[in-house]
Amino acid sequence: MQNFTFWNPTRIVFGKDTVAQIGKHAQVYGRTALLVYGRSSIKASGLYDVVVRSLSEAGISFVDFGGVRSNPVLSHVRQGVELAKSKTVDLIVAVGGGSVIDEAKAIAAGARTEGEVWDFFIDKAVVQDALPVLTVLTLAATASEMNSGGVVTNEETRQKFNINSPLLFPKVSILDPTVTFSVPADYTAYSAADAICHMLEGYFTGKDTAIPLQDSMVESLIKTIMTSTRAILKNPCDYDARATMMWSASLAFNGLTTAGIGPYGFPNHMIEHSLSALYDIAHGAGLAIVLPAWMQFAAERDPDKVARFARRVFAVQEDSDADAAEKGVQALKEWLKSIGCPISLRDAGIDGDNIPRIAQNATMLAHKWRLSDYTEAVITEILRRAL
Amino acid sequence: MQNFTFWNPTRIVFGKDTVAQIGKHAQVYGRTALLVYGRSSIKASGLYDVVVRSLSEAGISFVDFGGVRSNPVLSHVRQGVELAKSKTVDLIVAVGGGSVIDEAKAIAAGARTEGEVWDFFIDKAVVQDALPVLTVLTLAATASEMNSGGVVTNEETRQKFNINSPLLFPKVSILDPTVTFSVPADYTAYSAADAICHMLEGYFTGKDTAIPLQDSMVESLIKTIMTSTRAILKNPCDYDARATMMWSASLAFNGLTTAGIGPYGFPNHMIEHSLSALYDIAHGAGLAIVLPAWMQFAAERDPDKVARFARRVFAVQEDSDADAAEKGVQALKEWLKSIGCPISLRDAGIDGDNIPRIAQNATMLAHKWRLSDYTEAVITEILRRAL
Repeated sequence: MQNFTFWNPTRIVFGKDTVAQIGKHAQVYGRTALLVYGRSSIKASGLYDVVVRSLSEAGISFVDFGGVRSNPVLSHVRQGVELAKSKTVDLIVAVGGGSVIDEAKAIAAGARTEGEVWDFFIDKAVVQDALPVLTVLTLAATASEMNSGGVVTNEETRQKFNINSPLLFPKVSILDPTVTFSVPADYTAYSAADAICHMLEGYFTGKDTAIPLQDSMVESLIKTIMTSTRAILKNPCDYDARATMMWSASLAFNGLTTAGIGPYGFPNHMIEHSLSALYDIAHGAGLAIVLPAWMQFAAERDPDKVARFARRVFAVQEDSDADAAEKGVQALKEWLKSIGCPISLRDAGIDGDNIPRIAQNATMLAHKWRLSDYTEAVITEILRRAL
Repeated sequence: MQNFTFWNPTRIVFGKDTVAQIGKHAQVYGRTALLVYGRSSIKASGLYDVVVRSLSEAGISFVDFGGVRSNPVLSHVRQGVELAKSKTVDLIVAVGGGSVIDEAKAIAAGARTEGEVWDFFIDKAVVQDALPVLTVLTLAATASEMNSGGVVTNEETRQKFNINSPLLFPKVSILDPTVTFSVPADYTAYSAADAICHMLEGYFTGKDTAIPLQDSMVESLIKTIMTSTRAILKNPCDYDARATMMWSASLAFNGLTTAGIGPYGFPNHMIEHSLSALYDIAHGAGLAIVLPAWMQFAAERDPDKVARFARRVFAVQEDSDADAAEKGVQALKEWLKSIGCPISLRDAGIDGDNIPRIAQNATMLAHKWRLSDYTEAVITEILRRAL
């Protein structure tokens, strides 16, 4: 096991009828909140009203800031920063999925700097201060509710880059599984792909390639997510399945499964970020396209770990690692397809002519993340397999 | 899944050569520390010197307070409280295993009250303030380094009771697996029994009896602990095995495996606390005696979950739940025996004449913990099975 530091101070309030607690928790951090959310769906569902009533009962006034897009964009972050500064808010309440929370984190950092918020994303500046962020989660997928990172797309430069700072852990995140009952089948599937991919990045690329505790934690979580997803697709209001999915997705990317594995990379995210920066497809859908192609590529170089994955998660029986790995990749691909994910670029309406453009974009992130093995040629090869 | 709140703000610094970081972390919390530890072993091993040098390099003066016993006692806690108050220390640095850290937490609470520290243990008072506690762990077992509880024995009343408060989470815990290389075989085995029992209390008694995520997390952790223990007993300096054991033991009782399972009890701890309060046997050894007897008792009333445990952890094949459960209990008992744990009261030199005294003592804790099913008669029955 490699040396590590684990620290995750986010308070999780989990369960039915917990949303109305947001005011009580927000109270601790100030009197005026920036209320960040996406489109009108939270108004239609009544969630917006529950949040607003709770804040108001707790004596918190708020500045309304909706309109966050999925794959949130820098121009909107900048509007939020301006608003947070001009209204001198004390805290941010983010009501939404990963996109809303990611944007809230960017605004939190931007509101407490004299500099340019994008500098945090391109490693020109380090976050020194941030507004406290509290969240009400509406989509179980990214774990942004329980980690210190966020991703924003700069529309001008077409860079989908990330910000990260211990100051950006949400103070409190409210996870009410009933809020996710209305998540449609496609986003349920993309979310499962997202949560699984978060874990597999570390599982496959960590320095310690055989690390029993973390490996078995990942395998357990993946199997649990697969079972819950099936149950949710059958009955979107299955409380236990939604709850299991919600907590699993948080644990999938809150630092737990990667503690001790050593340095690891995000090659799938690297490529996917380009897909969603260029074509604005859902993050989880993009990952479902990239992951099997990347795994096949990786297994040809080193089949051991992919074979382990195949045996533990899909009960593949093949004796040779190469055969087991190949079967495992196929099994994952079929599973992703069965739940309704796209599994090829063509499934997402992207043809081979686009590959050079995607590969070129992804190399920017390869550079930022120091994934030096991922030259444009290598990325192109993976994209061809994903065609 | 049941509603829950999860919050665990302890910062874990894990790995080789991390002990010398204690001063840097302690610095954040003040200038004068109470240095709490047990017997002379940390001096013989050189660990004491590393800690003292690190504190001194960070400009922290310290008040030396050794002599904590395993199964720490109230009289010694009171000495620590007096010393912490008279020397007006800012923080506590605990170097040791669960006993040392538990006592440090009690001192931390006692030093910040005008009242009597034992009142926190008998629910006469609630912790309102506490000195910050930092730890350097020397034994992977109790998870006290990453939770908010502690256990102390009142020698006068023979009560082994617990204190608990969110204020008692250690601020920082340093976990260097090499520090545990010198833990002898018997304590390595008792520690494994302890960590496993921590998880099984919730697994068997939680309100949600089938909760896939948490169940599979527990089963994974138990299997990992079993494998690591075997490897450690073969080679006490197997770094990866010690590291896996160390982090597994923390995860086993830091709130993670119980989040969402609903209310649960500690019937095994209830009985074991009496064993160690009356006979001063090692906590893990006491649990190894009680656990199989309790599981047999529980399986006769409701074999389902014990059968699941048997199938998942010991790959028991029996079709009927009752048979599978019985086999599982036997398998656990044999495993505990194989690693060198006592598995009966007689193994620990306690004969049947002592049962009434133990049962009587345990009912005090049954009352405190509101385990109303556990009358003196029920406890007596379990103890007879443990004979």
